[in-house]
Amino acid sequence: MESLKQKILAEGQVLGEDILKVDGFLNHQIDVKFMEEIGKEFRKRFADAEVTRILTVESSGIAIACEAAKFFDYVPVVFAKKATPNTMAEGCYSAEARSFTKGTVSNLRVAKRFLQPGDKVLIVDDFLASGEASIALAKMVRKAGAEVVGVGTVIEKQFQGGSAKLRDMGCRVESLAVIKKFENGSILFE
Amino acid sequence: MESLKQKILAEGQVLGEDILKVDGFLNHQIDVKFMEEIGKEFRKRFADAEVTRILTVESSGIAIACEAAKFFDYVPVVFAKKATPNTMAEGCYSAEARSFTKGTVSNLRVAKRFLQPGDKVLIVDDFLASGEASIALAKMVRKAGAEVVGVGTVIEKQFQGGSAKLRDMGCRVESLAVIKKFENGSILFE
Repeated sequence: MESLKQKILAEGQVLGEDILKVDGFLNHQIDVKFMEEIGKEFRKRFADAEVTRILTVESSGIAIACEAAKFFDYVPVVFAKKATPNTMAEGCYSAEARSFTKGTVSNLRVAKRFLQPGDKVLIVDDFLASGEASIALAKMVRKAGAEVVGVGTVIEKQFQGGSAKLRDMGCRVESLAVIKKFENGSILFE
Repeated sequence: MESLKQKILAEGQVLGEDILKVDGFLNHQIDVKFMEEIGKEFRKRFADAEVTRILTVESSGIAIACEAAKFFDYVPVVFAKKATPNTMAEGCYSAEARSFTKGTVSNLRVAKRFLQPGDKVLIVDDFLASGEASIALAKMVRKAGAEVVGVGTVIEKQFQGGSAKLRDMGCRVESLAVIKKFENGSILFE
């Protein structure tokens, strides 16, 4: 997605060996108009997938999932939780995921009511790095007897191996910008 | 907002003395089409506020903020973070807030770049209970030399006192559904 690459080059900041900071439009401040473009692009790439539900994980995936939903006939969006609020007493699917940027392990949870057998689930997220979060989401979808029809990520850091692992699990992955590596603080797209 | 009250009555579940569970459309599964109605209603209520930025807190406020933004000429959305990722090294505003449903205290943070002096900030959130989160957000806005032009919440639990505290701070509060109390498991709106 050319406009995304341009935005990353214009506004992104490489930190160290493996971190890209894009908090001006994607995951702290959000450019909603641009998120709509992102949503439209996911629709284009997964037009044939008959998506019945969009699944993401709090927090940075939520805006992307909501903007995508309207291009998939307003299917329900579900976001997995990292902590368990006291309103969530009922049965949950859960799976562990390590956060690449926070260095913590979260036990992701989704209430069983919100993943139904037969659902065709599109997983979306802001970043695909080592793939921990998306893999955890995909495991929960499968536990529910539902199908992962795709994993759509805004920015993939290919060198961290997440997309390869997801494809090994049989998931179709579409990343709107694929970064091959960072070199001396600059970004090399695939 | 009548459609919201109807939805709460149809889908909400009262837990104990003071908790309303509405995770089927608001804060776990999200009904994006309904969130658009919510956003439109905030526009109506704050039409004269000349909003330049919408501020919320992760995670449940994000969908609401994004759907509202498009009715405010796509102003930037910013969400305060509860944990500090390693991409957030720069200067931040911070303020403490206790989570009513999780029983934890978070140190909310917003990067200084994303709150500018002169900004007219609309704060939005899913629930207004004791007001901890919105008060923390309002404090950060004022630290930045910006103005809180309003606090818009989807569901207010009036009996928990948050709206009174915010009004004492000089904030204009608009809640789309105001719950006076829960009585034997049923909901009494104001």
